[in-house]
Amino acid sequence: MSIPPSDADWLAAAARLGLRGRPVSRPNPSVGAIIVKDGIVIAHGHTQAGGRPHAEAMALAQAGEAAIGATLYCSLEPCAHRSDRGPACSQLIGSSGITRVVYGLADPDSRTNGEGQSILRDAGIKAELTDCAACKTSLSGYLMRKTKGRPHVTIKLAMSLDGFLARPDGESQWITGANARAHVHSRRAMADAILVGGGTWRADKPRLDVRLPGLESRSPQRILLSRGIAPDGVKVINHPAQISALDGVQYLYVEGGAQTAASFLKKGLADRIEIYRAPIFLGSGITALGDYGLTSLAEAHEYWQLTERRMLGTDTYEAYDRSEASFNSGN
Amino acid sequence: MSIPPSDADWLAAAARLGLRGRPVSRPNPSVGAIIVKDGIVIAHGHTQAGGRPHAEAMALAQAGEAAIGATLYCSLEPCAHRSDRGPACSQLIGSSGITRVVYGLADPDSRTNGEGQSILRDAGIKAELTDCAACKTSLSGYLMRKTKGRPHVTIKLAMSLDGFLARPDGESQWITGANARAHVHSRRAMADAILVGGGTWRADKPRLDVRLPGLESRSPQRILLSRGIAPDGVKVINHPAQISALDGVQYLYVEGGAQTAASFLKKGLADRIEIYRAPIFLGSGITALGDYGLTSLAEAHEYWQLTERRMLGTDTYEAYDRSEASFNSGN
Repeated sequence: MSIPPSDADWLAAAARLGLRGRPVSRPNPSVGAIIVKDGIVIAHGHTQAGGRPHAEAMALAQAGEAAIGATLYCSLEPCAHRSDRGPACSQLIGSSGITRVVYGLADPDSRTNGEGQSILRDAGIKAELTDCAACKTSLSGYLMRKTKGRPHVTIKLAMSLDGFLARPDGESQWITGANARAHVHSRRAMADAILVGGGTWRADKPRLDVRLPGLESRSPQRILLSRGIAPDGVKVINHPAQISALDGVQYLYVEGGAQTAASFLKKGLADRIEIYRAPIFLGSGITALGDYGLTSLAEAHEYWQLTERRMLGTDTYEAYDRSEASFNSGN
Repeated sequence: MSIPPSDADWLAAAARLGLRGRPVSRPNPSVGAIIVKDGIVIAHGHTQAGGRPHAEAMALAQAGEAAIGATLYCSLEPCAHRSDRGPACSQLIGSSGITRVVYGLADPDSRTNGEGQSILRDAGIKAELTDCAACKTSLSGYLMRKTKGRPHVTIKLAMSLDGFLARPDGESQWITGANARAHVHSRRAMADAILVGGGTWRADKPRLDVRLPGLESRSPQRILLSRGIAPDGVKVINHPAQISALDGVQYLYVEGGAQTAASFLKKGLADRIEIYRAPIFLGSGITALGDYGLTSLAEAHEYWQLTERRMLGTDTYEAYDRSEASFNSGN
């Protein structure tokens, strides 16, 4: 006997599927869609490179007539706007035989916001918005760009158990193991751009590319936070706030160093912190995060929430996402 | 359908049961014993306060005639030495009707080592030593005292995600939450003695007692690592190596501060590190662990193994045990 998946389970699955299109669907959101009939997935899709076809269109094409009477789960509200690249998904669904649509987020795009739902309902389809944390996470960069006009910022930190990224003499190769370092490359492949500070650039001459077999083409745009001149193939910004002007960048991955990470925290421009922690103690060295102007412990609490944790070899990977409350506290 | 527990599972259960006698069974090892017949636990026991009755005697008394044909699991080899407080457990088992004994560790006590097994076998009982990591952990202080002549040393560290135990101005109340702080008290109750350094003593005036309802009497002996004079009710040692001379102390819990923790690591006298990590970033402050003389990253690796992890509210508790290899590397 097994418990059938709930709407929330199917939505979370759709959200995970949506991650497959990230970030190559840019500037379109990478949506995931699953069509379920009699408790079984009969079709699925995710937004393709360049943004089309949309997830729903992929899934409907796969389902064909089997869509009649089925439920469509998608991480984002089906679009309401026609384009010369295809009909609106809500129209497409309306004529597909689908009888129920469950989606995880209203689309903040003004052309769709609520309009997708209206079109579905006008077509006699039960259209329900169900809260879905995984959907928010999988579309975080799209949502941040639409609602706050800037990319979603992930900060990567690699450190010892006692919070050091290097020994006092600068020795840092390697704190973390091969599995953790490969994982970093997989995270780079999910970003539109990688940013490092001038100090890290000069000290490490980092390649900042994706060195995973088959994913080399997914190497993101390189950005340098610096007051200096841009090296070849690298864009320079002088201040964290300038990330808003990085055209087409929804997902920004900040790789170091400690002062650069701190400068994003200081400005309230850090949305997610991913920590790779090796089971070693250094006792002294260069701390993984620089001073970001914290003035009391109270201010530090309830800002971050642990949302993911897994082992990578003997290292631990943890993701902390910024809490909703932190946006309201003026931090 | 369920998979029946293996010998290893029963031994691990006996080891956990043994923890109940810690540390009040001192100086006797706190052993756990379980009697199993037809796949069901029919009796169990653990070493009582002051060391008697032994776990096996407790379990056999509980089982009575039901012991006939049953298997006894115990975390340590049954004792071979008679005492004026009772017969040797191996003799007692020999006349109980038990037909098989599985134990997790040979007793390093020279009066028993292997002799317990001999007595059992002479009585026609199948007596088997099965490797059991949980048994080693639950008896770590007893084993350390017997084999290396010193207590087992646990170091407690409470810190932010970036490794700080306090802000630059010393503010440290509170980094961790109420659940984590209560957990610390439960750990104190498992120790024979708590140690802090002179700096922590002067700065925090810590009570170092157990403030859990019903466990107040389990407050351990208090030790100060200092060159100064002993305050009332506190014993002073001048150097970590002097822990060997702490009579009757098998389990030592080192609570701070950073330099004291480092001084134990430096001398290779840290066996377990328990970390309470709050989901906050400080950016600067007092680092949780002081410089312990590490000279390369290579030296730091493969020394510690993650053996436990759990959430305590929004804080994470992690235990790292020293690897066997670290004892052979001269560290």
